[in-house]
Amino acid sequence: MAAGSDQKKYKVIGTRPIRPDGADKVTGRAIYGADVQLSGLVHGKILRSPHAHAKIKSVDVSAALQAAGVLAVVTGADFPELKDKIAQLGEGAVNLAYLSGNLLARDKVLYKGHAVAAVAARTANQAEEALKKIRVEYEPLPAVTWVLDAMQDDAPLLHDDIHTDSMGNQSEKPSNISTHLHFETGDVGQGFKQADVVIEREFKTASVHQGYIEPHVATALWNTDGRLKIWTSTQGSFTARQQTAELLQIPVSQVTVVPCEIGGGFGGKISVYLEPVAALLSRKCGRPVKMTMTREACFEATGPTPGSYMRVKIGATKEGKIVAGEAYLAYDAGAYPGGMIGPGCMCVFSCYEFPNAVVDGYDVMLNKPKTQAYRAPGATHAALACETIIDELAEKLKLDPIEFRLMNAAQEGTRRVDGPVYPRVGLIECLEAAKASEHYQSSLKGPNRGRGVAAGFWFNIGLKSAATANVNADGCVTLLEGSTDIGGSRASIAMQLAETLGIAAEDVHPAVVDTDSVGYTDVTGGSRVTFATGMAVYQVGRKIRAQMMERAAELWEVDAASVSEADGVYSSGEHSLPFKELAVKLHEIGGPIVGSASVNPQGSSNGFGVQIADVEVDPETGKVSVLRYTVIQDAGQAIHPSYVEGQMQGGAVQGIGWALNEEYFYGDDGQMKNASFLDYRMPTALDVPMIETIIVEVPNPEHPFGVRGVGETPIVPPVAAMANAVYAATGVRMRDIPMSPPKLWKALAEKESS
Amino acid sequence: MAAGSDQKKYKVIGTRPIRPDGADKVTGRAIYGADVQLSGLVHGKILRSPHAHAKIKSVDVSAALQAAGVLAVVTGADFPELKDKIAQLGEGAVNLAYLSGNLLARDKVLYKGHAVAAVAARTANQAEEALKKIRVEYEPLPAVTWVLDAMQDDAPLLHDDIHTDSMGNQSEKPSNISTHLHFETGDVGQGFKQADVVIEREFKTASVHQGYIEPHVATALWNTDGRLKIWTSTQGSFTARQQTAELLQIPVSQVTVVPCEIGGGFGGKISVYLEPVAALLSRKCGRPVKMTMTREACFEATGPTPGSYMRVKIGATKEGKIVAGEAYLAYDAGAYPGGMIGPGCMCVFSCYEFPNAVVDGYDVMLNKPKTQAYRAPGATHAALACETIIDELAEKLKLDPIEFRLMNAAQEGTRRVDGPVYPRVGLIECLEAAKASEHYQSSLKGPNRGRGVAAGFWFNIGLKSAATANVNADGCVTLLEGSTDIGGSRASIAMQLAETLGIAAEDVHPAVVDTDSVGYTDVTGGSRVTFATGMAVYQVGRKIRAQMMERAAELWEVDAASVSEADGVYSSGEHSLPFKELAVKLHEIGGPIVGSASVNPQGSSNGFGVQIADVEVDPETGKVSVLRYTVIQDAGQAIHPSYVEGQMQGGAVQGIGWALNEEYFYGDDGQMKNASFLDYRMPTALDVPMIETIIVEVPNPEHPFGVRGVGETPIVPPVAAMANAVYAATGVRMRDIPMSPPKLWKALAEKESS
Repeated sequence: MAAGSDQKKYKVIGTRPIRPDGADKVTGRAIYGADVQLSGLVHGKILRSPHAHAKIKSVDVSAALQAAGVLAVVTGADFPELKDKIAQLGEGAVNLAYLSGNLLARDKVLYKGHAVAAVAARTANQAEEALKKIRVEYEPLPAVTWVLDAMQDDAPLLHDDIHTDSMGNQSEKPSNISTHLHFETGDVGQGFKQADVVIEREFKTASVHQGYIEPHVATALWNTDGRLKIWTSTQGSFTARQQTAELLQIPVSQVTVVPCEIGGGFGGKISVYLEPVAALLSRKCGRPVKMTMTREACFEATGPTPGSYMRVKIGATKEGKIVAGEAYLAYDAGAYPGGMIGPGCMCVFSCYEFPNAVVDGYDVMLNKPKTQAYRAPGATHAALACETIIDELAEKLKLDPIEFRLMNAAQEGTRRVDGPVYPRVGLIECLEAAKASEHYQSSLKGPNRGRGVAAGFWFNIGLKSAATANVNADGCVTLLEGSTDIGGSRASIAMQLAETLGIAAEDVHPAVVDTDSVGYTDVTGGSRVTFATGMAVYQVGRKIRAQMMERAAELWEVDAASVSEADGVYSSGEHSLPFKELAVKLHEIGGPIVGSASVNPQGSSNGFGVQIADVEVDPETGKVSVLRYTVIQDAGQAIHPSYVEGQMQGGAVQGIGWALNEEYFYGDDGQMKNASFLDYRMPTALDVPMIETIIVEVPNPEHPFGVRGVGETPIVPPVAAMANAVYAATGVRMRDIPMSPPKLWKALAEKESS
Repeated sequence: MAAGSDQKKYKVIGTRPIRPDGADKVTGRAIYGADVQLSGLVHGKILRSPHAHAKIKSVDVSAALQAAGVLAVVTGADFPELKDKIAQLGEGAVNLAYLSGNLLARDKVLYKGHAVAAVAARTANQAEEALKKIRVEYEPLPAVTWVLDAMQDDAPLLHDDIHTDSMGNQSEKPSNISTHLHFETGDVGQGFKQADVVIEREFKTASVHQGYIEPHVATALWNTDGRLKIWTSTQGSFTARQQTAELLQIPVSQVTVVPCEIGGGFGGKISVYLEPVAALLSRKCGRPVKMTMTREACFEATGPTPGSYMRVKIGATKEGKIVAGEAYLAYDAGAYPGGMIGPGCMCVFSCYEFPNAVVDGYDVMLNKPKTQAYRAPGATHAALACETIIDELAEKLKLDPIEFRLMNAAQEGTRRVDGPVYPRVGLIECLEAAKASEHYQSSLKGPNRGRGVAAGFWFNIGLKSAATANVNADGCVTLLEGSTDIGGSRASIAMQLAETLGIAAEDVHPAVVDTDSVGYTDVTGGSRVTFATGMAVYQVGRKIRAQMMERAAELWEVDAASVSEADGVYSSGEHSLPFKELAVKLHEIGGPIVGSASVNPQGSSNGFGVQIADVEVDPETGKVSVLRYTVIQDAGQAIHPSYVEGQMQGGAVQGIGWALNEEYFYGDDGQMKNASFLDYRMPTALDVPMIETIIVEVPNPEHPFGVRGVGETPIVPPVAAMANAVYAATGVRMRDIPMSPPKLWKALAEKESS
């Protein structure tokens, strides 16, 4: 659905060609990390902490070194000394001592599953057996796994070198609070005085995992000439390269990362876990070393998204105008600083005009795995808080929930509480599309049924992307990119190059290549690939076009300035040839045509979406069934609409799982009790209806084709939309997520008895 | 050794860094064609003709198709119809029907070992067994294996569609002569009238094989989406791609060729043999198919260099001035047209000023495998003829053989008989270096010992090369090239980029990548890689330099025009940073820096060399021992002198083998009798002394660093130098090559008895 009259007409963009990686993936030929086989390959395994919190008094690996088939053993002491070393890694500054401590613990283990030592042996079984021979002497310490508990003065301390008190001040006494963020706009006190209705609520959300199907896997070969080659499934080959190089304190160009296909990442495959450990093992034994995580290790020792405590208050006038907001957000960091609180703060009030607002965010360390990004990290939590209060306000004000949102919707010129002022954005268009949709216009009848609506916001980061394209003798173009393809980006990037050159999508052959074979490219994440790598291939296309025009002038023996190009047809006077035919001629008479470009866009784009959920609650069991679900989202310009829809559907389904069932279930001992897909309940195809989609297109003025990233926004509204729908169905407001059957059943029972 | 005062000073060029591919190769990690393993891989084998010449009356593959493990069978009929299709392939026009006929015969087999059908089966043994079940009905025909016999009117005819008579005219009657070349300069009749001494001799040389250690091997996967991927050891990945695409009549961009490491090529791994056959098998069975040749197949069914008959006549004045030359060269084409006669004609008189000359060359088909390039193809034969006659003339004129050559040496302005006029060349400098050498100045004493000298010429082709380089965050540069590395070209190309950028050789990391990952690049051959791909990386370096200057201006906030660069240090006013430091800063603040370039140099350069051989002949057996051997050659500018020396040594050793022992030994039935390394006698390290080298450097004015290709010239003089040395040792002129013990023993016996 096109939103405005500023819509350009494209030949390739907006069509739905078959994805270039399709055949390989459906026939099983695509090479994932687990498929890597090298001659002399040996297997690495990791010994993990059984304690949620303990001092390591000693590690004795001597017996393991003598075990059958063992070629090398490493511990944290094998990493270089990294204390106070800060590296700029892709999306921001990282303290390398914390990063390396998370890969192999040194003095303390900070969560159940924390890696302590690693073994390489001829077979995986031999490596497993050898792990049992490593003697670790622990001194168990009390553990803390709930964010508010971890903020208490008497909480068990994870690190003794972090000194932020609960008010965000630097204190003498170390604390579990690693960061306190504070944003303010207007005068909140005055704002609430203007309010006729004020609602303040508390929320709790559990840790949830990205749940990618493919576990982490990495193979490393530290060659005799010092070159380190790594095969891995990662969201960012260059990020993996840089992290590995920094952790091992070797130059990045000494490392080559070969990105294999990736079976899902969702933010959880940005940080390295295995790569540097496999590298250290390989350096010791001189063989390629492959390491694969179990599902249990993925749950216990990679980064889930934070659990959270939130207290949010919003005031509005009786006319329906929001006048003030206040948010207190405390998010799990996990065992090391650097959680997801920043985007949480950015996103909590980002859908609306808040003349007065204050946001306080706390990043809190506790005895759980270090949290990582999970698709719009931190935003889903915040949207739950904001969007369910908005729903309550609309009800109190007797306004249609979409109308109320429209009255306050962020638009061009709206200033976000953390500072930025929006350029042209598409929330109003999404809300209007939602309102006009057949779904919203339809009536939902029957007992225990209800409809919820929620909006959501996510930004696109820019970051660096590079690409190179070679024009072949047959006029087709091969395209090299560094962005690993998770959701169809080979197609969306190739299509932008095809559009730029005026050729068919099928005539561009994209390849995701290793870190030696293309310019530095940041992670596939932050909804940036189709946006930023798309900008890079646009530049590549323009450079190729310029060469084609110069070379056409030579071919035709005309002045270069007389050659023009339109829709892929090059002309000068009576001469005229389409790209492919011209390319064939130019190849015969001259050298090959090659274009390379890199971009580092400083702007960002902003994606908004609205979702509508119809649910039915079984009062006997508390089970929620999703009857109908529609995702409306501003894609700016949908390059390949099928993959935009796929992102919208996938994000919504993950959010539904988060809303209804998914959670890290901890015992009092800090042990996760459900670290398997049997016990950690993710939605399957049987649990959700076909997710309907409505693509809204308000072109992004900062991109040549108007692209806005679409990967993350769709996971922002679902938890709130589901909570609003459950309320509509039952009259119960669920603010402790997930709304799992036992919790919802209990809430229904309490309501019944009250 | 630097020849002139025009010598530039370089920081990287001329040094001897460790080769980038060294560790992988010495530790066995480098991936050669035979190392390719894919899941589901099956094995292909080829059925070959037992006859040297026969009609194929029928081929019945039905029993083979039923055999255990068999997945597919192909015959010549599986190739598309290619009659009269001509393709431009790298170095020239190729008749595709002949090329495909050489891969799988259709109506006739033309030589023993000619491929007739191929089978793919689960195991190599199953494929071998299935070959035995293919029923081919042959009608044997008389065969011809000697070039002069094949030129006779009553010779068995290989093709009925080729009509060149022995005078080179188009005739009604088909003929085995596919080409007659004729070059003429001055007035030969008048020239010989001015001569005081005229010598005319006849020569015969046997077919010899390149003898690369690694047999041909290829793996092909025809994917379900139509994409064809080929892993092969080839001199030219793009040439292999193009030949395969043309033979299968699919667009080149549908094919990706992954060049594996290569265990020698010497011109013999330019034409495809297995790749399209493996592709057809893969298309039929849907699996990756791997095919490996036996050594026997390499000898019998790949392209050796031509056997030849030559008659050459040279006249000189008594003062020692050459006045006329006449050459009649008849070279084997093998079973199909397109032999090596062209460069033979170019090279026969190319070392000297011939005011009057005529050259006639014949390309003659016979029942031997289709000949292919072998290191300076055709030139070694021609040099044997010219350089031994020059030796005789010098003797008759009582001139030192080097002096006589100096008196007539080709130099800037000399016109070659086939047309071109030399730019600045270095033959005189090579002759002077030879004359001044300790080797030539030393005396050679003892019975049956002798010293021979010969000169040689080879040109460099230009052709197309492309390269891309990416600047890493640590200031090192990764370099992608399409030139497969046979003799150390990763080093020589990376060094030219390092020199251009003003950084250390070790800071450039070169990689030879697949045909999707770099612009079109022609074969590694024609002594072109260090010359032409070097030009491409020079352009890449200049583009990166320009970006660095622009970006430095941004960093320093100065006018771009104020930024200068010298020796890799970028400066503007008080600002000054070397490349690596600047690159690190630029990476932090901006996008990655990437440079791509392609070249198609139209000029060519010309390499000359002189060789000195000391031998001792055992009169009892006719065995020749090489006592001392020196190779002098103009490298223009030696980029990595060790690899220049390696080329000089390797070429000389191959030429020594050719001179003394190597030959295809045919029975009257057209069967090769010595198709194994046991019976085909190549020199080993025990057979030759350490080959001494003297690099002469007369910079090539057509290259930014003065490079002349060095790979081929060193194989041109050895056969002549050895023949001259044998004459000096024994008084016997050997003109039937090889001078193997039985032949030389017989010649000595005949001289004794005369």
